[in-house]
Amino acid sequence: MRLSKFHLRTEKETPADAEIVSHQLMLRAGMLRKLAAGLYTWSPLGLRVLRKVEGIVREEMNRAGAIELQMPTIQPRELWEETGRWQKFGGQLLKIKDRKEAEYCYGPTAEEVITDFARQEINSYKQLPVNFYNIQTKFRDEIRPRFGVMRAREFLMKDAYSFHIDDESLKAEYQNMYDAYSRIFTRLGLKFRAVFADTGAIGGSASHEFHVLADSGEDAIAFSDGSDYAANVELAEAVSPGERAAASETMRKVETPTQKTCEDVAALLGIPLQRTVKSVAIMGADAEGDAQFVLALVRGDHGVNEIKLAKLPGLAEYRLATEAEILEHLGSEPGFLGPVKPAKAIRIIADRSVAAMHDFVVGANEPGYHIAGVNWGRDLPEADDVADIRNVLAGDPSPCGQGTLGIARGIEVGHVFALGRKYSEAMKCTVLDANGKAATPAMGCYGIGVSRIVAAAIEQNHDDAGIVWPDAMAPWQVAVCVINPKNDATVAAAAQALYDELNAAGVETVLDDRGLRPGAMFADIELIGIPHRVVVSERGLAAGTFEYRARRASEAESLDRDALMQRLTAR
Amino acid sequence: MRLSKFHLRTEKETPADAEIVSHQLMLRAGMLRKLAAGLYTWSPLGLRVLRKVEGIVREEMNRAGAIELQMPTIQPRELWEETGRWQKFGGQLLKIKDRKEAEYCYGPTAEEVITDFARQEINSYKQLPVNFYNIQTKFRDEIRPRFGVMRAREFLMKDAYSFHIDDESLKAEYQNMYDAYSRIFTRLGLKFRAVFADTGAIGGSASHEFHVLADSGEDAIAFSDGSDYAANVELAEAVSPGERAAASETMRKVETPTQKTCEDVAALLGIPLQRTVKSVAIMGADAEGDAQFVLALVRGDHGVNEIKLAKLPGLAEYRLATEAEILEHLGSEPGFLGPVKPAKAIRIIADRSVAAMHDFVVGANEPGYHIAGVNWGRDLPEADDVADIRNVLAGDPSPCGQGTLGIARGIEVGHVFALGRKYSEAMKCTVLDANGKAATPAMGCYGIGVSRIVAAAIEQNHDDAGIVWPDAMAPWQVAVCVINPKNDATVAAAAQALYDELNAAGVETVLDDRGLRPGAMFADIELIGIPHRVVVSERGLAAGTFEYRARRASEAESLDRDALMQRLTAR
Repeated sequence: MRLSKFHLRTEKETPADAEIVSHQLMLRAGMLRKLAAGLYTWSPLGLRVLRKVEGIVREEMNRAGAIELQMPTIQPRELWEETGRWQKFGGQLLKIKDRKEAEYCYGPTAEEVITDFARQEINSYKQLPVNFYNIQTKFRDEIRPRFGVMRAREFLMKDAYSFHIDDESLKAEYQNMYDAYSRIFTRLGLKFRAVFADTGAIGGSASHEFHVLADSGEDAIAFSDGSDYAANVELAEAVSPGERAAASETMRKVETPTQKTCEDVAALLGIPLQRTVKSVAIMGADAEGDAQFVLALVRGDHGVNEIKLAKLPGLAEYRLATEAEILEHLGSEPGFLGPVKPAKAIRIIADRSVAAMHDFVVGANEPGYHIAGVNWGRDLPEADDVADIRNVLAGDPSPCGQGTLGIARGIEVGHVFALGRKYSEAMKCTVLDANGKAATPAMGCYGIGVSRIVAAAIEQNHDDAGIVWPDAMAPWQVAVCVINPKNDATVAAAAQALYDELNAAGVETVLDDRGLRPGAMFADIELIGIPHRVVVSERGLAAGTFEYRARRASEAESLDRDALMQRLTAR
Repeated sequence: MRLSKFHLRTEKETPADAEIVSHQLMLRAGMLRKLAAGLYTWSPLGLRVLRKVEGIVREEMNRAGAIELQMPTIQPRELWEETGRWQKFGGQLLKIKDRKEAEYCYGPTAEEVITDFARQEINSYKQLPVNFYNIQTKFRDEIRPRFGVMRAREFLMKDAYSFHIDDESLKAEYQNMYDAYSRIFTRLGLKFRAVFADTGAIGGSASHEFHVLADSGEDAIAFSDGSDYAANVELAEAVSPGERAAASETMRKVETPTQKTCEDVAALLGIPLQRTVKSVAIMGADAEGDAQFVLALVRGDHGVNEIKLAKLPGLAEYRLATEAEILEHLGSEPGFLGPVKPAKAIRIIADRSVAAMHDFVVGANEPGYHIAGVNWGRDLPEADDVADIRNVLAGDPSPCGQGTLGIARGIEVGHVFALGRKYSEAMKCTVLDANGKAATPAMGCYGIGVSRIVAAAIEQNHDDAGIVWPDAMAPWQVAVCVINPKNDATVAAAAQALYDELNAAGVETVLDDRGLRPGAMFADIELIGIPHRVVVSERGLAAGTFEYRARRASEAESLDRDALMQRLTAR
């Protein structure tokens, strides 16, 4: 492609309404043009990148044995009623009436449509397992679309759905897709993590999210430095600490007139934060279902994990206790709460790390006072429950047993999900099994946000000059920049020859023959992130050299033609 | 691809609700699955064909210098208000409200979006000409969707839009696109015609429709057997006949008691239909704009062309005359009307072929009578207007001067259109011209119905056994059919080797390893239209041969391996 014949339109200024760097750079590079809230036109440059991603996704899905089909974007209400999602899906579902007042939605996902397809197309276990995928425009009516294509309303998604005669087959395909996704993100050249995920509201038995790592990511991920373990911070297990040491201090009341937080108390007493215990008062239910006051204890430097807490008996629908409830059960106002001698009988839940503490500090249940030198068994009974109820921290040992946890931020770009029979049951999709009996197939679903990957890749790969594409996503691998092409036919011809030679060698090359000044030309080529730049100039030709610079390199090099070709074709 | 791993599901029965052969065969071959009215899922088999078409369209658009981008499917009302089409487009426009009650439509076409893109992206004539294209899902809310993907509501379209500083540049691009379209349909292996079209309601200066020829086509096309001239029957010019011969009969009244049509009169009198003249009474306007009674005359074997008639002065909004108006001006009831001695002064418009007639027969303006031996000048004044007001017939000389016209039926699959400045003016899209002044660019638009082509190709290419794909559209070029693969490892291995060899040689081959009986297997392969079939059997292997049959051939042949490979790779 010659840039003079390509519609490239870059901008120097950072657009005021773009909040994150990928959105800013995509607008500056002219990859996108906003049409309306959450709706973007992909310019020729943007589309080249989008197609690179789409192509790799398709190749690896095919390699994994999935079969591509194409479902309509518009889906009839009737199918969504069968699963109850017409109501349950919420405001993101864009509902539409046609000229005959029949109701439809713009598909945000396609479990209903594919299950309807399967119940008509698949009769026998002999047709299973099968995995259908679709690369198609989706729509979610986000309440606040923003961040460009990172959270657009209309977006390009690869969604796949597998059907299985039994759970074992589903498990195998789940692993197959997990591996395919790993290949996809590896080929794209992205740093990523497969993250064990909560199965959440969709329902299902296993789930991993694939995250592109980037400081700007919305999700915090805990990952091991010694294995491929990774989990959402909310889900990562905090491993059991060692044995509890023996008491060495006596219990004593200490004055803490204005110190209501563990940090303040530790500072006042001159002890490490790790010696303090935070008491969180909540209301749960006892075995009979009656309201029960609960004190949840975590170490002063830890945070309570609400998801873990809610998994304990009686806490599925817990809430924070009111000041009145706290006063009734502990006889104190918040800020000075603790498990020692409560006013009434309460349930005490200790995080595993708290249960292992000795000589610790808690609130005295009396305004202005804490108690130091507290020890389990001696000063208060052992806790009613000991459980993992805290968030992991960087530096914690990895629950997989190998390495230490780090915390990174990630952008979710893929999701594999063992759905089980939720949709096939609701929609009465059955097949005949080997015994000729009707069986409900198990399902998996596997999504990739194709357009979102483009933005996520930029969040991960950019510098002050602009985008730094991984090779596999770059619109072109090489830019041949011509100095003064209009006034120097020799230089123009040499550049054209090099451009032809590179393309003939299978290196996707663009010729910048626009005749811009070198500074403006180089700025454009850097901004749009071309991995390799070659400058053809009169001076270089006289010396028999080309100026070569990798996008990530700090300096340019002079290479003769053979060295240059070797460098560019050997990649 | 091995068919045992591919989701192929054919049906023997013709579906009751499919009216046309392409829809029937697409359902029987399992290419489509209906989701709702006018909404279809493309199965893996169907999608393979659709992608073949899409690929060729993309290649030729790129070759022609057009640049691909991608617009959203959802378009904001505001842009459609700028051109007035939010109201004018009619019921086919699927209107949508989002959760904030903002209004959108599902794009049926994208003139507004691309003009909005251009007015932001293009500042200078130096960026012109440019041609942007998009291969994207479109939606038209057809009142009666039918015929499968021939008239679906959601469909795949390639739409291109070009921008030009002047009309000359538009003209050149129009020709460029015309040539690209010709290459596309030629490469697809379809018999087609580029048809000069009426510019219709969209407004514009030049337009050609590309029609795939098929007996079931909705449109009648007149085409020359001696050139590439083709036009919609309504638009094809009927060339001037020769000179008028001298009168040889005397005018006489003949009794035609019940004969009201030219056919009946000619039969009664024992003369050729070509000697009779049909008189059509209409109401137009005179030069002052007052209502004017008009008698339009065409030869008995010709039909009045309403489009041509309406182009004459005073007839832009003509209507048929009422019986009262006919009685007032001609003194007779319909069925016996004629131009001789009307009761009142009327305007007479003669088709050119009528003006060249002599000794002809017309109605006598008296119930039960016609007049024979009528001659212009002698029996009635020369007509007020002589013009081309008839439809052409097969056998007419071509208006291009070369060859004779035939009439064929066609399915419109493409359209090139010189739009002029309709959209750029309405949307205030301007660029700076060479003098630094704001200029409104001229536009062209160029559409191809990608999904419709699949159906049209089947309408043109099928037989009793099923679809007969042109090579370029076939899901695979070759099917290797294995007889009894489960019980005969030698045959299975030989088939696998042949399959591998063909794919390695670049021949897209499918292996039918499903283990069906030969009859059922061959029926499937014929139904889905694979151009070349090879059968691997124990008997063949013993003789060192393979059974080969082209889809269009009446008989199979036995070929040894070399001859087979030569046949299949030489295509």
